[in-house]
Amino acid sequence: MGLQDLEHPLVHLTPPHGWLNDPNGLWYDAKDELWHCYFQHNPDSTVWKQPICWGHSVSKDAIIWDYKGLAIVPPDSDGGVFSGSVVVDNRNTSELFDESTDPRQRVVAIWTQDADGIQRQMISYSMDGGYSFKDYAHNPVLDINNSNFRDPKVIWHKETGRWIMVVALSQKFEISIYSSKDLIHWQYESGFAVRGFKGLQYECPGLIKVPLLDANGQEVKDTKDNWVLYISINPGAPQGGSATEYFIGEFDGKVFQPRDNQVRLMDLGKDFYAFQTFYNTPNDKDVIGMAWASNWQYTNQTPTSQYRSCLTMLRKLHLQKLQITPEYSEINLFSAPLWDQDSLVNLAPPKSLTPDAPLLPNHGLNINLDQGEGLLEFTWEWSVQDKLVPKADFCGITMFLKDQETSNQFLSLGFEANSSAFFLDRGNTGSHFTETNPLFTRNLSADLTPYRTFQGTSIYKVHGILDRNILELYFNDGALAATYTFFYLENRPIRWVHMESSVNDVFKIKELRFTELAIKSPSKTY
Amino acid sequence: MGLQDLEHPLVHLTPPHGWLNDPNGLWYDAKDELWHCYFQHNPDSTVWKQPICWGHSVSKDAIIWDYKGLAIVPPDSDGGVFSGSVVVDNRNTSELFDESTDPRQRVVAIWTQDADGIQRQMISYSMDGGYSFKDYAHNPVLDINNSNFRDPKVIWHKETGRWIMVVALSQKFEISIYSSKDLIHWQYESGFAVRGFKGLQYECPGLIKVPLLDANGQEVKDTKDNWVLYISINPGAPQGGSATEYFIGEFDGKVFQPRDNQVRLMDLGKDFYAFQTFYNTPNDKDVIGMAWASNWQYTNQTPTSQYRSCLTMLRKLHLQKLQITPEYSEINLFSAPLWDQDSLVNLAPPKSLTPDAPLLPNHGLNINLDQGEGLLEFTWEWSVQDKLVPKADFCGITMFLKDQETSNQFLSLGFEANSSAFFLDRGNTGSHFTETNPLFTRNLSADLTPYRTFQGTSIYKVHGILDRNILELYFNDGALAATYTFFYLENRPIRWVHMESSVNDVFKIKELRFTELAIKSPSKTY
Repeated sequence: MGLQDLEHPLVHLTPPHGWLNDPNGLWYDAKDELWHCYFQHNPDSTVWKQPICWGHSVSKDAIIWDYKGLAIVPPDSDGGVFSGSVVVDNRNTSELFDESTDPRQRVVAIWTQDADGIQRQMISYSMDGGYSFKDYAHNPVLDINNSNFRDPKVIWHKETGRWIMVVALSQKFEISIYSSKDLIHWQYESGFAVRGFKGLQYECPGLIKVPLLDANGQEVKDTKDNWVLYISINPGAPQGGSATEYFIGEFDGKVFQPRDNQVRLMDLGKDFYAFQTFYNTPNDKDVIGMAWASNWQYTNQTPTSQYRSCLTMLRKLHLQKLQITPEYSEINLFSAPLWDQDSLVNLAPPKSLTPDAPLLPNHGLNINLDQGEGLLEFTWEWSVQDKLVPKADFCGITMFLKDQETSNQFLSLGFEANSSAFFLDRGNTGSHFTETNPLFTRNLSADLTPYRTFQGTSIYKVHGILDRNILELYFNDGALAATYTFFYLENRPIRWVHMESSVNDVFKIKELRFTELAIKSPSKTY
Repeated sequence: MGLQDLEHPLVHLTPPHGWLNDPNGLWYDAKDELWHCYFQHNPDSTVWKQPICWGHSVSKDAIIWDYKGLAIVPPDSDGGVFSGSVVVDNRNTSELFDESTDPRQRVVAIWTQDADGIQRQMISYSMDGGYSFKDYAHNPVLDINNSNFRDPKVIWHKETGRWIMVVALSQKFEISIYSSKDLIHWQYESGFAVRGFKGLQYECPGLIKVPLLDANGQEVKDTKDNWVLYISINPGAPQGGSATEYFIGEFDGKVFQPRDNQVRLMDLGKDFYAFQTFYNTPNDKDVIGMAWASNWQYTNQTPTSQYRSCLTMLRKLHLQKLQITPEYSEINLFSAPLWDQDSLVNLAPPKSLTPDAPLLPNHGLNINLDQGEGLLEFTWEWSVQDKLVPKADFCGITMFLKDQETSNQFLSLGFEANSSAFFLDRGNTGSHFTETNPLFTRNLSADLTPYRTFQGTSIYKVHGILDRNILELYFNDGALAATYTFFYLENRPIRWVHMESSVNDVFKIKELRFTELAIKSPSKTY
């Protein structure tokens, strides 16, 4: 395995070469039982450059992806096939299909053409299960002569029996809602404008109905206000550059009415943008999605050579009540990675620290992961003796991740008890990019006060998936998520964990378990 | 001058020793022409520790502060005198005064008592112009038996002839609005709840009417919706820890109605919290305020020895239209530092770079500030040849600030042209704290796309005040502000500026002018 292979994560979608940004047209093929992911792509450039096309990858298990090349290309090299979505028009509302196409594969892509300074909504359809597309003869289907009108995401609104599109008037800060009977004729219904963190542009909206679960994980039926509208903002996200925010509310087929006037971020990391959900997922809830794991502030300079950027794992969403403070609880968006270990090989039995092992300053605990090829899963749970926390000192428990015990390069993450904040430091990984690009924020943090449980002491837990150059963290069973890319020196895989505390007695490890994984298919094509 | 003296900024308020956090009770004495600032204070501890009192400093010019010790102390050492505000009850609505007190000095402090697990609103009044306070005999004036009900800020609402208090129900995420005829009897009017970025607690609200200026700086009269409600959130700010957000809208004496449902941050840095405005400022607009320049994520560990934390410069606010995108403009909150050079000594003539001097990679330009004692003002304006920006490379212009040319320690700030983002790196200043506390975020950024002007090229400008261990930046005439603390090795003053570009031809310096300043009064008591 060469260095260039090591730079690709294993279970995060990348193109084999060239540029990738937003995920597009996510759908599940119920006939062939296949996940389809398209994405903004130029195979011939590792920086964003026209012509931007829809690249295409498929997966049987949503873990291992197989690259299929270009699915939609612009008619000439000046324009671009910008972001959009896919629906399965199984009842042939568009009349684009005949009986020769299985209803489960009547795929229509709705996307933005960027040409001549105008952005128009176009449709294309596929007769071969989503591998190639034909442009609709009378495109565009929606053109309001605006230069920043893009990223249509279409769903089937079964309550009113119509297609619903949300699309961004990016520079007016409006998410426009349109309806259609046939995917071709679109009627404006309403606008959701100037809400939340505006940033300096709105992009990539989506509207989904998300199941509300009770404390036992059972779905609460007959709920109304459990629609989620997500919007990506770039530039101008509060952490800098790009981020995805969301709102929870009611949707009646015409207007989205948020249940309150707050704004929330879907992921607290700096690498989570353009989130989109799949159409027609097996459980029929369509609440599984993925995001682009990068940030426009630095994405064109990240230190990979063959390709640039990956997508996140698939995440399944649900709503659930969360006690934010002793006086206030609210419905919160939870997420969990779709993590199918059957597709993976355990390289060694999972390795753990002895529970409640003493953790002392400068006398930490180690886990040797010498089988690791760069794909690690871990669960980490720790308790904090709040009364023993020394206020004047940094009171931290820190995990250092590196390629070998003697290395000076590391990724570190941990928890500081005075502030109840989780932190990540991706600034000591040795790559030139990391050390020289100040927009690739080294330190990131997440305030965890509501994301704990009490059992005499405060208990925190995090589930992590570390895949070569990306780390996804899910706190407290998915109540909070944070995604971070990092670039370890020469793409060396992480094989050594060191855990230590800056103080005595405050922290106890309740669980720390690492699993070293590889993918089954050696013929993976990313 | 010893190292301990060097650790105090010169024109930013600090206590001579001990702990400081939120500014409290800000008011201007029109009789003695004196600025009064109280603040959360414990002179005997450099970490937050009860008993928390109101410390007190005064200033003739709002630049040089004179420490006056404790103004309000809790009756016993268990409780705390938490944050609050001051009004001048010149018409003696409270009947606490008689003719012996000049109407301009009828000072009433409204503050939160934290005792026995309950937070109650108390008043105290001063017969000596704000130096000592007497508790009102029938305190509390507002008690709803809540453990997190604090930080009353009171204004006189002249339209309805009543006092208006905004106060935080911190853990219910409500800003409660009360009215009173006499400062003693308070009536609940409305609540502003679960708005904007909630964070994990609301604190330190304030409600002010802010003048709207037109493009020529003239006030637009007869405006209605130019009230600003500001709220501090901690923990859980989007950048981590503590931040101040604000909303613009109408206030009719009972209800604050925001003009839209967006949320905005008052300052993009990580050290701007608990902003509060002065009462009774000379121009009668009461739109001058200051904030605590720190963050609860790390404030108890910052590397000062005698004291902890400073307040920002005074900032004057106004509203003005800003073109955010070509398709969207809105009313934006501008701020400008109250910066009275008459109170300061120019240590040397201002030093400038030659305009349009060529700036090359590894062949930068230098400014030697050898007279500097750590207080510097600068204006920096640069142009960007957008068409020449190489997409695949970090395309930056960077200013390095250090104590001397040969030092390896530096503070750096600059601009990256691919992302139009300003960046600051405070991670190379050499202090142990900086290098070891990952919550003291090293890299911070501000997306500047709307904060530019066009004259063939894009032109950006920033006004900076650097004062020993704090840097305040005002972009594009105050359309955006960002405050950052930093801790340079052994508190050495910045005396050397090096400016370079990572590319040829893209950037031109239109202006870079540094002024080295000192304070006139050598007897400054902080």
